[in-house]
Amino acid sequence: MAKEKTSALHENKGVSQPKDTNTRAIKNIRTKRNTKLNTKALVASILKSDTVALSRAITLIESNHPSHIKQANAIIKACLPYANQSIRIGVTGVPGVGKSTFIEAFGKYLTSKGKRVAVLAIDPSSSLSKGSILGDKTRMEALVKDEHAFIRPSSSGDSLGGVARKTRESIILCEAAGFDVIIIETVGVGQSETTVHSMVDFFLLLKLAGAGDELQGIKRGIMEMADAVVINKADGDTLKHAQLAKVEFNKALQLYPIKASRWKPKVMLCSALQNEGIDSVWKLISDYIAITSKNHYFEKKRQEQNKFWLIQTIETQLKSHFFNRPDIKKELEQQLELIKANETTPFAAADYLLNL
Amino acid sequence: MAKEKTSALHENKGVSQPKDTNTRAIKNIRTKRNTKLNTKALVASILKSDTVALSRAITLIESNHPSHIKQANAIIKACLPYANQSIRIGVTGVPGVGKSTFIEAFGKYLTSKGKRVAVLAIDPSSSLSKGSILGDKTRMEALVKDEHAFIRPSSSGDSLGGVARKTRESIILCEAAGFDVIIIETVGVGQSETTVHSMVDFFLLLKLAGAGDELQGIKRGIMEMADAVVINKADGDTLKHAQLAKVEFNKALQLYPIKASRWKPKVMLCSALQNEGIDSVWKLISDYIAITSKNHYFEKKRQEQNKFWLIQTIETQLKSHFFNRPDIKKELEQQLELIKANETTPFAAADYLLNL
Repeated sequence: MAKEKTSALHENKGVSQPKDTNTRAIKNIRTKRNTKLNTKALVASILKSDTVALSRAITLIESNHPSHIKQANAIIKACLPYANQSIRIGVTGVPGVGKSTFIEAFGKYLTSKGKRVAVLAIDPSSSLSKGSILGDKTRMEALVKDEHAFIRPSSSGDSLGGVARKTRESIILCEAAGFDVIIIETVGVGQSETTVHSMVDFFLLLKLAGAGDELQGIKRGIMEMADAVVINKADGDTLKHAQLAKVEFNKALQLYPIKASRWKPKVMLCSALQNEGIDSVWKLISDYIAITSKNHYFEKKRQEQNKFWLIQTIETQLKSHFFNRPDIKKELEQQLELIKANETTPFAAADYLLNL
Repeated sequence: MAKEKTSALHENKGVSQPKDTNTRAIKNIRTKRNTKLNTKALVASILKSDTVALSRAITLIESNHPSHIKQANAIIKACLPYANQSIRIGVTGVPGVGKSTFIEAFGKYLTSKGKRVAVLAIDPSSSLSKGSILGDKTRMEALVKDEHAFIRPSSSGDSLGGVARKTRESIILCEAAGFDVIIIETVGVGQSETTVHSMVDFFLLLKLAGAGDELQGIKRGIMEMADAVVINKADGDTLKHAQLAKVEFNKALQLYPIKASRWKPKVMLCSALQNEGIDSVWKLISDYIAITSKNHYFEKKRQEQNKFWLIQTIETQLKSHFFNRPDIKKELEQQLELIKANETTPFAAADYLLNL
């Protein structure tokens, strides 16, 4: 009908919409509506064991964006009534000990028994770009493909305290998603074992049999925390070494006082590669759960861990809040100079700073 | 002249003085005047090595009365420019190892060489009415009578943190009073060695030779802190045992990494009762002082200790201030109940408490 030669792509000029009178308010309402929808939907999906929703929620937990933190807290709160039902197992060992092979074999064994297994990792070294322990995509291939398993690398670039909080909160979501066993993996560096130990029910130390002198190089305190020492690669040529190591570890474990759990730590052999001894490890952990449930230590330990994390978080925040104040930073340096010059004492300086 | 029969003790009725118009102000002025005088006089006497004044000042440091604290702080401030000139030696060992006999023999040796020696004690156990380690009046009789020595038991009934502060401050006064060597004695219980270690230049572990297995029963970390292990009662029948123990301790010390001081801890034998080996201990400490003065570790360590006590005091105060707030006490219990009931997480609870 039109006489002018126009393109088929021609568009009539429309009437532009009037500007929003209060863009900020509209944005707020939209975000809120969106968030509400997402939170509700995410929680519903998590409770239906949807691992995509679980992943998205953990990503929110790992974010430091204020709106994400808010939404993450809402999701955690909604998931809390469904949490606490799993068995939490910590697995630690130096690099090369075969942690991923062990966890894969162990995880596959559990899923074959009808259990649902989640693997989370605490890896402070990844924040120093040394690579995440779960970052290697070729690891745990069989477990990754298992529909009853969920594997999640740790968030990197965070302090150990931050990673710890995020892992603890991820555990809650995994439990709400119906996972029966949560495995927390960590490499034997820095303070990470202590952190993992304080968030699991059972702490498993993975070792390798060398040529004697097995106790050398074990970090102070690690042996004391272990509920079981599992010597991996107990196969072929190294089987004999492993058997000798077992004797040595058993001796060493007897030197420690009896644990509050009344549980006597055990030493076991396994070959994750040959899939040998994996069932015994699960049997051992089941025994531990049965004993500590009966003597109420299981529940007591979880409550103590809760209190530990509550107090720990408060103390860390109090300190960081105080020492990050610009006036304190400045005056602290000055007070240290005054102490050096014999003009004040550390105690008088502390009083002065606290009264600022 | 008077006609009535009156007693020789008769007194005419006087005119009563008008009441002070401002009793509080007058009291304040009087106290202030008194304090000023005392503080000045006390400091002057301390600087003249008057041990009675030193004792009185330490009593003020040990008091928790606000006016005493104020005066003590003024005295410390005035003494500070004269402090820092002594050698501070920590001596620890389990009960029965012969600490007092050793300190007496060591102290007498030093005073015979023209040194002035002060002995202070950190004894957290005394607060549990187990008796102070220096409370026994019959101990160190010869040293007590020595005019170049000053012996002061620890204040009891206080937390280890409180005792530590008071001891650190007493060190300053002893140094201002011209003592060349300050010995801090502690029993090998609880955290007291760590506390002593962080306020001395040289840390001496006193041991006894038994029948083999010398390393058993040594508390974790103590060996690492020691600059010297001195095996006491190396005389008569036990000399052979002591010699064997020396070999064993030497082996054990080699397992630890090299210290920041570059000092290699030594093992020595002595018999405090027979007065044997005491001179060698002093020779060893003098060597240590010479080496660490040359490599500047001596001064560096003192500055690090100052920073440690500054940060430590602040952190303790921040925590105690927060957790002693009546509202926090009440709400903390409630939050723990909510965590138990799966209605909040330790982290959300911490955020809540911190925002109160």
